[in-house]
Amino acid sequence: MMKHFTHISGAICAPKGFKASAVQVPIRKLKKDLALIYSETPATVAGVFTRNRAAAAPIEVCKAQLKRSTTCSAIIVNSGNANACTGEKGLQDAWAMVRKTAESLGVPESQVMVASTGVIGQPLPIESILAVIPRLALLLSENGASDVAEAIMTTDLAKKECAIEFELGGKLVRIGAVAKGSGMIAPNMATMLAFVTTDVAISQPLLQQALSMANQKSFNRISVDGDESTNDMAMVLANGRAGNAMIAENSSEYKQFQSALEYVLTELAKMIVRDGEGATKFVEITVCGARTEHDAEVMARTVANSSLVKTALHGEDANWGRILAALGYSRIDFLPEKVEIKFGDVPILNQNFEIVLDEAKAKAELSKHDVRVNINLNLGNASATFWTCDLSEKYVEINGSYRS
Amino acid sequence: MMKHFTHISGAICAPKGFKASAVQVPIRKLKKDLALIYSETPATVAGVFTRNRAAAAPIEVCKAQLKRSTTCSAIIVNSGNANACTGEKGLQDAWAMVRKTAESLGVPESQVMVASTGVIGQPLPIESILAVIPRLALLLSENGASDVAEAIMTTDLAKKECAIEFELGGKLVRIGAVAKGSGMIAPNMATMLAFVTTDVAISQPLLQQALSMANQKSFNRISVDGDESTNDMAMVLANGRAGNAMIAENSSEYKQFQSALEYVLTELAKMIVRDGEGATKFVEITVCGARTEHDAEVMARTVANSSLVKTALHGEDANWGRILAALGYSRIDFLPEKVEIKFGDVPILNQNFEIVLDEAKAKAELSKHDVRVNINLNLGNASATFWTCDLSEKYVEINGSYRS
Repeated sequence: MMKHFTHISGAICAPKGFKASAVQVPIRKLKKDLALIYSETPATVAGVFTRNRAAAAPIEVCKAQLKRSTTCSAIIVNSGNANACTGEKGLQDAWAMVRKTAESLGVPESQVMVASTGVIGQPLPIESILAVIPRLALLLSENGASDVAEAIMTTDLAKKECAIEFELGGKLVRIGAVAKGSGMIAPNMATMLAFVTTDVAISQPLLQQALSMANQKSFNRISVDGDESTNDMAMVLANGRAGNAMIAENSSEYKQFQSALEYVLTELAKMIVRDGEGATKFVEITVCGARTEHDAEVMARTVANSSLVKTALHGEDANWGRILAALGYSRIDFLPEKVEIKFGDVPILNQNFEIVLDEAKAKAELSKHDVRVNINLNLGNASATFWTCDLSEKYVEINGSYRS
Repeated sequence: MMKHFTHISGAICAPKGFKASAVQVPIRKLKKDLALIYSETPATVAGVFTRNRAAAAPIEVCKAQLKRSTTCSAIIVNSGNANACTGEKGLQDAWAMVRKTAESLGVPESQVMVASTGVIGQPLPIESILAVIPRLALLLSENGASDVAEAIMTTDLAKKECAIEFELGGKLVRIGAVAKGSGMIAPNMATMLAFVTTDVAISQPLLQQALSMANQKSFNRISVDGDESTNDMAMVLANGRAGNAMIAENSSEYKQFQSALEYVLTELAKMIVRDGEGATKFVEITVCGARTEHDAEVMARTVANSSLVKTALHGEDANWGRILAALGYSRIDFLPEKVEIKFGDVPILNQNFEIVLDEAKAKAELSKHDVRVNINLNLGNASATFWTCDLSEKYVEINGSYRS
């Protein structure tokens, strides 16, 4: 189980030495849409990226930057336009954003990352973007976190940010984070951006390892509609300003940091699901009693991605048969007759297909905003939790006319 | 390309020597819900079944029957209750249906198949079902096909049946078929039943081979919501009453029969998609220019199963970026910059991300009931076509309260 941490204010500017700013270009909507995150001293950087083969230009640029340097001073990010499927011109535009930001901040070009989110297949209004980057640099402030949270929103209805502090090797350290994402959230981080700042001192390989593992158990365990996007990334900057001793491999400090990072990313992941397009319910699906964690994860994901399960939950219909059917097509080996299903603590199905469903109690549980589906395979000791939302008429309405 | 065939009336009773009947038990709704398909002489039988690990009792029984005998005289099938996730009792009930049918028809128990469709996890009203089976046998008629088509419907809005005739080795032969399925249709035949009758003479291994291949290119290439059911099956009975010489392996007669069977199954598959729950559009997705047919099939399926693509089509929004994004997460290797996309004959995207989208022309194409999405990967010569429907608010409404 994950331990709980002390939440603090300030989000991505809570860790020492970080500033942020955002402005309206505007790119698509009349709102802030261009943001800058800055570390006063070069920060160790790690990232995870979408596996979509039509990955957007900024994804390619960030991967190239990570090969050039283990440190980073700034991230420039826009919403409204994904700069995806834009070919050579898109790459040139992404690099132009990097160069202009580096120039405005007086840092080497290798120290800037770039991210985009929004409509696919349209050229960036690059001249307008480049024109306002110097102003972004001038606006950098320790109070800029909330502006960044707003600027990276697309169909998001709520800002998504948090920060925690905890003791690490005798020093108080902080992790801050901001994210966007609502539609198209899937395992493998679809249409999601997350930026994490921390003032711990840690090496690049360890930071990458901690991020990859935390990402696997947070953003890769949420789903809104099963689609994967061209632009997803999660990136973490660690500037060491807390003054802790450099975290060592396999140390208890590493485990503490890993656990804290996983906690922060999971908090953001849950916020993303709560803001799922058209979502009226927050759904937590836990598969336990599995032979391996991989089995549990695949099965929880299959149930979470089933349109039939999601519509039944939307209709508050205790249709456990659809859950069992989804487990059945997950391609994981299990014994249907050993499966137990509960909604929250209300038993629905016992082993040997004994139906213990009390419609009134089930309905009471399903009518809650937060619904927990607990599935016990009774085959082993591994478990995994996956978060999703229901599938509503509103989702169809929102996504039938996104470009309009 | 598939050739066209002469359609005839009579559906599953069109081939010589077949009769059918249906009655109301009733199991769940006040409509015909129990049906019988009968061949006057034992017919060679072949079947394909769901890969769901929580496969229903009748699936297990049919697989066991196929091991016992290469011939079959009758299929007993009910709607309203899937007899799935019903454990040992479910198996006993399915066998009881087989035995009672065999007894009523005066044929060996090994000569009867059984199928069910409907709600999961509830015991069959087996006594009521067994009580009416003798009457079903008495009602058998050459005019019973349409009653069977009605009796196997669940959320289907329309009957699905067809029959064709063609010359084979100098003899006129016939293939008839009936199917049900609307929600939960997926690749791998989710919640779909199909029964095919033919009066050709063919050996069991060749019949199985022809069915498996035809199934792969028809029912396994349609999708409504990507879920896979516990009960799907397609079964074909060939009684040889047309008097053709037994079809030989690799003969031109085999190829003709295979092609005709594929044609009939594809006709039914398209009817199922047209009747997709809440569907307002029929969507044909063709991926061409692929390196292999497998690549083309996986990519067409991924696009067809994307909730974002399906909602955009529902909203008549020419959001080609979502199509490219879906290709991107299909895990098939391709070059995004080489992709061309057309809606019908209207070009939308040329190579090198050249957008040639004329919004008015695209809208005119997307406002049609039948929408064709043509994707050229420009990498090879293989292609595959997949059929699906749009995702509407109505789908959510229907599936939010199915059990109620």
